Amino acid sequence: MIHLFTDFGLEGPYIGQVKAVLARECPRNEIVDLFSDLPPFNAKAAAYLLAAYGPSSNQGDIVIAVVDPTVGSARDGIVVEINGVWYVGPDNGIFEILLRHSSCVARCWRIVWRPKVVSPSFHGRDIFAPVASWIAKGSGPETGSDSRFLPTEANKITQRNWPDDLPEVIYIDHFGNMITGLRGAMVGPTAIISIKGMQLQRHTTYSDVCKNVPFCYDNGNGLLEIAVNRGRADQYFKVGVGGAVSCTH
Amino acid sequence: MIHLFTDFGLEGPYIGQVKAVLARECPRNEIVDLFSDLPPFNAKAAAYLLAAYGPSSNQGDIVIAVVDPTVGSARDGIVVEINGVWYVGPDNGIFEILLRHSSCVARCWRIVWRPKVVSPSFHGRDIFAPVASWIAKGSGPETGSDSRFLPTEANKITQRNWPDDLPEVIYIDHFGNMITGLRGAMVGPTAIISIKGMQLQRHTTYSDVCKNVPFCYDNGNGLLEIAVNRGRADQYFKVGVGGAVSCTH
Amino acid sequence: MIHLFTDFGLEGPYIGQVKAVLARECPRNEIVDLFSDLPPFNAKAAAYLLAAYGPSSNQGDIVIAVVDPTVGSARDGIVVEINGVWYVGPDNGIFEILLRHSSCVARCWRIVWRPKVVSPSFHGRDIFAPVASWIAKGSGPETGSDSRFLPTEANKITQRNWPDDLPEVIYIDHFGNMITGLRGAMVGPTAIISIKGMQLQRHTTYSDVCKNVPFCYDNGNGLLEIAVNRGRADQYFKVGVGGAVSCTH
Repeated sequence: MIHLFTDFGLEGPYIGQVKAVLARECPRNEIVDLFSDLPPFNAKAAAYLLAAYGPSSNQGDIVIAVVDPTVGSARDGIVVEINGVWYVGPDNGIFEILLRHSSCVARCWRIVWRPKVVSPSFHGRDIFAPVASWIAKGSGPETGSDSRFLPTEANKITQRNWPDDLPEVIYIDHFGNMITGLRGAMVGPTAIISIKGMQLQRHTTYSDVCKNVPFCYDNGNGLLEIAVNRGRADQYFKVGVGGAVSCTH
Repeated sequence: MIHLFTDFGLEGPYIGQVKAVLARECPRNEIVDLFSDLPPFNAKAAAYLLAAYGPSSNQGDIVIAVVDPTVGSARDGIVVEINGVWYVGPDNGIFEILLRHSSCVARCWRIVWRPKVVSPSFHGRDIFAPVASWIAKGSGPETGSDSRFLPTEANKITQRNWPDDLPEVIYIDHFGNMITGLRGAMVGPTAIISIKGMQLQRHTTYSDVCKNVPFCYDNGNGLLEIAVNRGRADQYFKVGVGGAVSCTH
Repeated sequence: MIHLFTDFGLEGPYIGQVKAVLARECPRNEIVDLFSDLPPFNAKAAAYLLAAYGPSSNQGDIVIAVVDPTVGSARDGIVVEINGVWYVGPDNGIFEILLRHSSCVARCWRIVWRPKVVSPSFHGRDIFAPVASWIAKGSGPETGSDSRFLPTEANKITQRNWPDDLPEVIYIDHFGNMITGLRGAMVGPTAIISIKGMQLQRHTTYSDVCKNVPFCYDNGNGLLEIAVNRGRADQYFKVGVGGAVSCTH
């Protein structure tokens, strides 16, 4: 299964063009749109989302993870393998939190291959999708000496000075729910969570509170999320991606 | 074929996560996004849309129908089978109009199975998708005694006091066209249809009227729909989902 | 592979309903959403996008191209074959630029077949999708005498008085980048490109310029595109689809 995790947008041709490459190069693979609307240009938010939403334990799965504002510059493309799951994308920190949260040893490669024709503004289609299709067909970088890839190490790829848990809103969903970069399991039951000065009760699901009441909960992927029952938390709090969340233990 | 009929949003990971479960549990099934952006939290609007847009005559088709604001509460999940088509979703009235409009006898089950790990806020991924995948593989509730399901009857599931036809806007599409809960076949040719005090001519397609002229027509799934040729009816009338439509015979 | 190229919208049931027909009639074909959000009702913009984004060299590929504001009127549906790639859609000029830019001879047919039940407002689902599925199964119009299709010629289908290259914005993407109807290869290196009186430097990718600086570049499909590094060009210039671009040689 190939998961697409990008800021390319649902709109327009970009996701379709990536899928067309995959369908041509490795037909009959299941392709899943994990996120197509990651916060644009925001590799940091993507890094926390990838660590929580990646298919951490499905051997052979591939994630094309592309939030890539410096596409076409000197930044490298990389392949990361953790516990049998493969990740392909730019070397800009997008894999940082995934690598840090993982207890497994990661293997890493720089992508030195270049296609004959490459758009400087669309490596997702022209480089990362072909590399993912090779991995899907079993001819990824693990098969010995390979002029397409340069082995490297997890501590040699771009390092970011980002915290293990990020007390910020990192994604606002279709319902206006605000996903934070805090893992619920790291936030103790006595922690005081607040946003814009308003303290939030912690519950398990929407109907635990009355209509239009804000609260927070551990979401379906383990991140602390702020919601309003049958309402929009983003409008309630007038907070966007990057907005600060306070969490005091 | 598995149809997804939800208010999960095109954005974000939710549809992708449901598809990932289906692709893993019953690979090679065709999965179709029927609606991903049903009016949020609005099981009533969804009920009328499902009755019109469901695959009423395709034996073996499965519809995962989830508009579920009380997910994780005491409300049950149910499976409904009508004329060889299977429906999986919450017991909150979403199947009410479908059942009422159907001339076939329905079979119904409550889902008593729970997975080892379940998110209280995402039964679509954790309960309804696995159940749908079982049905797709031929091991749904019809195969005799089954600890996963509790047989029930159509008149034992949640009943709503909703009319057979709903004189309201139930969905606004990408073009600004307003779908109503009225079946065109139930609206006689002499009926007077109006919205916000403006009477609408009934035609068959957009180019039957001049540019920027509003009208109504029986849409591709038999519901009465209000449109403006090459314009947006929602902006023309400043009406949203739930807005009243008048239909006098 | 079947490519969907429409203004149907990502939202709502339309793309899903077309895919359901294809999945039923020609299962296991790869279906790719090339564009689902073409500028509504705008066959002209679509014509330039199709010429640039169509799968020009993949034998057997099929494109369902539908921007069809006069659906259900006297306008015909047509099938066009160019260099082994098949196109199905309305005869309203949407194939005009593709045909003009192509160096290959095109074969054209009018679709005279009508299904028993057809929605006057949804030929994409009821006519174009079934025709595409026939082509996918190898029983398209090329197989001799055929009561479903009427052979015609490229110069007999609707002709539009549109230029070979269009100095206008024809699509605004998810990032706010503005795609123009100008082929980069036709715009010489000394050409002066400007929009709203502001002259634009030509570069190859976003990070060639500082943050928030506008520029233009040949995009991944060869069209001249206007962007702002890490910003939104559409908001920077307050220009929408149809906005004029100046290009003086």
